[in-house]
Amino acid sequence: MFDPAGERMDELCRGGLRIIQNSTAPRFSLDAVLLADFTPVKAGDSIVDLGCGTGILPLLLYAKNPDCRIQGIELMPEMADMARRSVAMNRLEQSIRIDHGDVRQIEKTVTKAAADTAVCNPPYYQPGKGKVSADALTAAARTEIHGVLSDFVAAAAFALKPLGCFYMIHRSVRFTETVVALESNGLRPFLWRQVQPFAGAEANLFLIAAVKGGVREMRLLPPLTVYESAGVYTREMREIYKGR
Amino acid sequence: MFDPAGERMDELCRGGLRIIQNSTAPRFSLDAVLLADFTPVKAGDSIVDLGCGTGILPLLLYAKNPDCRIQGIELMPEMADMARRSVAMNRLEQSIRIDHGDVRQIEKTVTKAAADTAVCNPPYYQPGKGKVSADALTAAARTEIHGVLSDFVAAAAFALKPLGCFYMIHRSVRFTETVVALESNGLRPFLWRQVQPFAGAEANLFLIAAVKGGVREMRLLPPLTVYESAGVYTREMREIYKGR
Repeated sequence: MFDPAGERMDELCRGGLRIIQNSTAPRFSLDAVLLADFTPVKAGDSIVDLGCGTGILPLLLYAKNPDCRIQGIELMPEMADMARRSVAMNRLEQSIRIDHGDVRQIEKTVTKAAADTAVCNPPYYQPGKGKVSADALTAAARTEIHGVLSDFVAAAAFALKPLGCFYMIHRSVRFTETVVALESNGLRPFLWRQVQPFAGAEANLFLIAAVKGGVREMRLLPPLTVYESAGVYTREMREIYKGR
Repeated sequence: MFDPAGERMDELCRGGLRIIQNSTAPRFSLDAVLLADFTPVKAGDSIVDLGCGTGILPLLLYAKNPDCRIQGIELMPEMADMARRSVAMNRLEQSIRIDHGDVRQIEKTVTKAAADTAVCNPPYYQPGKGKVSADALTAAARTEIHGVLSDFVAAAAFALKPLGCFYMIHRSVRFTETVVALESNGLRPFLWRQVQPFAGAEANLFLIAAVKGGVREMRLLPPLTVYESAGVYTREMREIYKGR
């Protein structure tokens, strides 16, 4: 269970950026780092992160290009508070705003059709498939108990300007649902990259990008390989961790 | 234009199997060989090939396991005739039947819900996107003038038994349409493999399998790489050509 005493501060290898995490709450994972790498940040971009957790994606996206404004939406008050304090600690209140809000009522916190970019590292598991954590924060981060995949996708479609782009990561097993949810919300996939633990292995994750209301030809990127050997990252992964 | 005098006979590197082709008509490509490799053939399987062209897929699938029955459907009479003569030349009339028919009226040639497996190497191009060949046979093979992607997928859904599987190949740019067409016809994708010309390159094709009315977890296979260097096949491609 959440204990404020579990709080700690971690370095992000991004020019001194730091993040507050709590060992009794969900911490950021490799997947957020992959998604930040996959998401381009252009000068002047307005970005929304749907379910921002610790605030890791806003911080990493800011590090890619400080000339942007990022709004992170987080439902769990303890997480939103921690993310907000991370932003303040890095003195980034002018660039990053964390709002307590629900993707299922996105119109309450996000301006319609105003974002250039939306990102989402959604809860990966469906209730009824796999164990749901007894801890409320962990359950909310991992399991679709406060919103399902299509809720997150619909929120992205709401937030984006025409021709704005949505970047997300999900588990391989959610492939079809993801493509169908994007398409049925008017978001057309244009970029795909599967993530495989080792070279030549089946992928367990994928990164996908989709454009709102536009037509861009689909590109299937070569896979991203995480490990060279057990516990040893590939060169590309090391570059991603350092921030390229 | 089609000239009967352009006919020739080619070896298939499959225990003496041969195929009649015509240098003035569409000939089989790498893609059919990849799709045959991707499609499992179990003893006793009943298989339908939607748009069989030269009959290459029926011949290659037969070579994988002679204990099967295959029906090839082909709209262009010249192609259906050539495919039928290839079957006869190999004395495979007991195993392979070629029917002149239209995927848009699949009920006229195919028994409903009777196939274990359906395969399709569909026309790749949409009319209005790219040049349409002046040659009727080439145009029918390459461009969606006698049926679009969703017609081929719907025909597969018609032909398959419950839990029967559909295997197809398509161009990367048709990614989203393919997934959406499969799902909306009750065919759930469960296997994916992108095909890249060189290691580390973007894929230009993908292979996908879907099951009718069932639930199987999606697997994202590592990509298939065609060339090791310019004009030199990878080891895996050489194995696929030889028939593994």
